[in-house]
Amino acid sequence: MITIDGTQYSKWSRPIFEQMRAGGVTAVHVTLVYHASARETLTIIGAWHRLFEAHGDLIMPVFTAADIRHAHEVGKTGIIFGFQNPSPIEDELALVEVFYQLGVRFMQLTYNNQSLLATGCYESADSGITRYGRQVIAEMNRVGMVIDMSHSAEKSTLEAIEISERPIVISHANPLFWHDSLRGKSDVVIKTLAEAGGLLGFSLYPFHLRQHSATTLADFCGMVAKTADMIGVQNIGIGSDLCQDQPLSILEWMRNGRWSKTMDYGEGSAANATWPEQPDWFQSNADFPNLIVGLREIGFDEDEVAQIMGGNWLRFCEEAWV
Amino acid sequence: MITIDGTQYSKWSRPIFEQMRAGGVTAVHVTLVYHASARETLTIIGAWHRLFEAHGDLIMPVFTAADIRHAHEVGKTGIIFGFQNPSPIEDELALVEVFYQLGVRFMQLTYNNQSLLATGCYESADSGITRYGRQVIAEMNRVGMVIDMSHSAEKSTLEAIEISERPIVISHANPLFWHDSLRGKSDVVIKTLAEAGGLLGFSLYPFHLRQHSATTLADFCGMVAKTADMIGVQNIGIGSDLCQDQPLSILEWMRNGRWSKTMDYGEGSAANATWPEQPDWFQSNADFPNLIVGLREIGFDEDEVAQIMGGNWLRFCEEAWV
Repeated sequence: MITIDGTQYSKWSRPIFEQMRAGGVTAVHVTLVYHASARETLTIIGAWHRLFEAHGDLIMPVFTAADIRHAHEVGKTGIIFGFQNPSPIEDELALVEVFYQLGVRFMQLTYNNQSLLATGCYESADSGITRYGRQVIAEMNRVGMVIDMSHSAEKSTLEAIEISERPIVISHANPLFWHDSLRGKSDVVIKTLAEAGGLLGFSLYPFHLRQHSATTLADFCGMVAKTADMIGVQNIGIGSDLCQDQPLSILEWMRNGRWSKTMDYGEGSAANATWPEQPDWFQSNADFPNLIVGLREIGFDEDEVAQIMGGNWLRFCEEAWV
Repeated sequence: MITIDGTQYSKWSRPIFEQMRAGGVTAVHVTLVYHASARETLTIIGAWHRLFEAHGDLIMPVFTAADIRHAHEVGKTGIIFGFQNPSPIEDELALVEVFYQLGVRFMQLTYNNQSLLATGCYESADSGITRYGRQVIAEMNRVGMVIDMSHSAEKSTLEAIEISERPIVISHANPLFWHDSLRGKSDVVIKTLAEAGGLLGFSLYPFHLRQHSATTLADFCGMVAKTADMIGVQNIGIGSDLCQDQPLSILEWMRNGRWSKTMDYGEGSAANATWPEQPDWFQSNADFPNLIVGLREIGFDEDEVAQIMGGNWLRFCEEAWV
């Protein structure tokens, strides 16, 4: 079975790449940046080149959907680059294609806060897609970089779906009907996304789970089934949001970057400031097979399980990256 | 006939691209930077993407030797990126592969002055390849970026040929035996370069010509013939160094960058500070056919002319960019 994970930001290491192989992970969309300039992003891409050199027996870069199929054939995990924040393109439209050429295949228009392009899900007012944002959407459409609105506010998200001439994704988020949070997505967003051919990746980040770390696999898979009933099985996938082995400093960096003088706790709180504990059935990249079991048990047939685990992502990427 | 020009830095425009087609130019190695940081170089690459979009009927990007053959088949001019100065990689080894991925296929280790890698041809003392320089040469060898020593000092050049495990080039320079200048190359350098499988591109920049603008086509082609007698016809090509339509400010930038407080006149002088006049038989990209005529008249057979005009560059690139 082809397994594709729609988002991860782990502290990459050989043990994690080995877990990916153990978990049968065909490809992963990895986050390159939260808050980084164009120049800093080159260093991050350079560091990935070193990982490809050092661990070429386990991982390989992905530029095309054919690369994902190739990874499956040769038993490696394909690495797909993405930005959770448009900071690397700065105020320069031409950097969309420059970073596409370097392998970046997904870009969020916002990461929680207002960006130059759109409004993030933590802002109190949502002004929608900006003038620059419209230019960037058109350019992403042209080169084949996928728009990701996981961390965006509702109006901005609906406008992005409307303005984009190609389907977009919410690579890692869960429906509000299951769990209420600033990062959750309304029925309207989910239905509009799907009607436009978009894809929703279900998150396994504990703050996105109804009972956090205590959420059961059956409960999670029930949410998947309910969403499938709502929008069909062809528009859903996994976007685990796994952040394996990251220190607290990285969580603080994700939440505060260089923009906050006081500590922002994001989805946590002063009393709950650290990384949440993963549920016991999804601790690491080795645990993707548990999702397969859970999806079967909730009633999906084999073809549907294959679509949700990776088939839908593969089809989406095949159409998107041209 | 496949015509490949080993170096140009023109003020790119549609009229110049049209001249390239009129002149039967199959591919050109274009200079992206003289003095630019990594970040600035991204903007320059972005500007080229715009040119490819706007003039896609005349030009196309080149990443592989197959792209050059394709350009020939479809009647376009292939554009090959190169740096005349290693400034874009700054002090970060990993940027070699990053820029290779963005299409950069040639990099000079120095531009006249000492760089982090080697010594330029205008320095009074030549310390050879530096510690970082050795790392960069190994990395360029690994990824397939070609080392270019056109603007380097003699000892540095000989060391680069020795240290590099792959053939290198002097993309645009002429032999000292024909014209004495700081930028000219000694017999020792030319022979060592050729013995290691390297390639010398003959320059048509007037300061590199024996009688500057008044140099005749026959005199130029005589130099080509004498060099061919010395090292064989398979190791030579053209590297015109054409700088069409550039304002004086660009010449001053090339010569002074951000490093000089007083005006440096490079190959010129205070009394001769501006762009030199091209010889009447090589005014623009439309004049490459004149070189074909001149090479025939000096006695090269058709096969040899084809090698010198582009065949040797094509073979070199085919072996280099892997």
